[in-house]
Amino acid sequence: MERSPHPGHFLVLEGIEGSGKTTQIERLDTALRAAGHPVRNTREPGGTALGERLRGLLLDPDLPGMCAESELLLMFAARAQHLHEVIRPALQAGDWVLSDRFTDASFAYQGAGRGLGSQRVAQLEDWLQGDLRPDLVILLDIEPETGLDRAVQRGRRDRIEREALDFFERARQAYRERAERAPGRYLVVDASADPDTVAERLLAGVRERLPLHALEG
Amino acid sequence: MERSPHPGHFLVLEGIEGSGKTTQIERLDTALRAAGHPVRNTREPGGTALGERLRGLLLDPDLPGMCAESELLLMFAARAQHLHEVIRPALQAGDWVLSDRFTDASFAYQGAGRGLGSQRVAQLEDWLQGDLRPDLVILLDIEPETGLDRAVQRGRRDRIEREALDFFERARQAYRERAERAPGRYLVVDASADPDTVAERLLAGVRERLPLHALEG
Repeated sequence: MERSPHPGHFLVLEGIEGSGKTTQIERLDTALRAAGHPVRNTREPGGTALGERLRGLLLDPDLPGMCAESELLLMFAARAQHLHEVIRPALQAGDWVLSDRFTDASFAYQGAGRGLGSQRVAQLEDWLQGDLRPDLVILLDIEPETGLDRAVQRGRRDRIEREALDFFERARQAYRERAERAPGRYLVVDASADPDTVAERLLAGVRERLPLHALEG
Repeated sequence: MERSPHPGHFLVLEGIEGSGKTTQIERLDTALRAAGHPVRNTREPGGTALGERLRGLLLDPDLPGMCAESELLLMFAARAQHLHEVIRPALQAGDWVLSDRFTDASFAYQGAGRGLGSQRVAQLEDWLQGDLRPDLVILLDIEPETGLDRAVQRGRRDRIEREALDFFERARQAYRERAERAPGRYLVVDASADPDTVAERLLAGVRERLPLHALEG
């Protein structure tokens, strides 16, 4: 695992709708805490008072005409506050930051899904993050049809979950391509199995990448 | 007045708090309508359902810790939607778009006031606007002390109005410098006089710049 110039560890869970991120981040959180590590469990869009209010806007099905540029800028507005208020201070304090989505999601959803391309996303990433990148991105990989079936079973769909299947196909492909280009920073886990099996695979993969004492508890 | 590649006219009113923009935009609106022109009177941040909700966030005194980068990105997120949903369609339809603030405000408030610098603002401007610039920016110029006295008399101050005097000094200077660099696109009006006098000066200045039939009514 590549190391950043801070004493903490920055782990991100990514994946399309229904990939099981919420369940798996809780499992990872539990495992890290059991090993005695200080964990900061957070999410995007969100993680701050401003970010959670922006999340409400971004997922609101009553704002259907939002243009792709606004969507991308709102994601990064929430992210800037998240970095400023939560992520950078926690990493400086030596915490393990676990984030349910981060900038890879902007490459997947706004860059590929909405067709804005990766260059605009990369410019905003460089501006707001400088050299800061996640130490490890865990991609819960799943077929969009399977994932959306799961998401639909949870009930009312939000603004982004209402997109057509090919939108999620593009997002999934972007995630997979990013993982292929930087295998040292990504852990791809097949998320089609049951949650226990996925958690086992995920923790085994994380153990291989992390400092050895990290998950011994 | 320089012309844009659309049949409409794009006029923007700028100025710091208490410069009288709201009053003067109504006067200009009335004069243009009296001359038989179709007017689209709008504002930033705002002008769309999304933009008005972002305006609520941006001015909310209960979100005091918003970082400068988030503020700038939220302004441009609202602006992107404003361009997409209101400004471009209205200009294409041949309307006179009157906007209470536009991108000059981002140069003044976030670029100069918050110290983010003009380069980031210019990059976002180029990305989201392409070649589109206002045909005329009317700067209602006023001393910050005078303007803030007026704003205070209106009652409870919003998040931005709570800034210190030097913040507004920097914003005013940025407005004035932008006007000096492109005098053909700016009309600077001394806004310290009473509203009737300011309106007279403003309309006289606009008449000089606009197609002659524009304000004959």
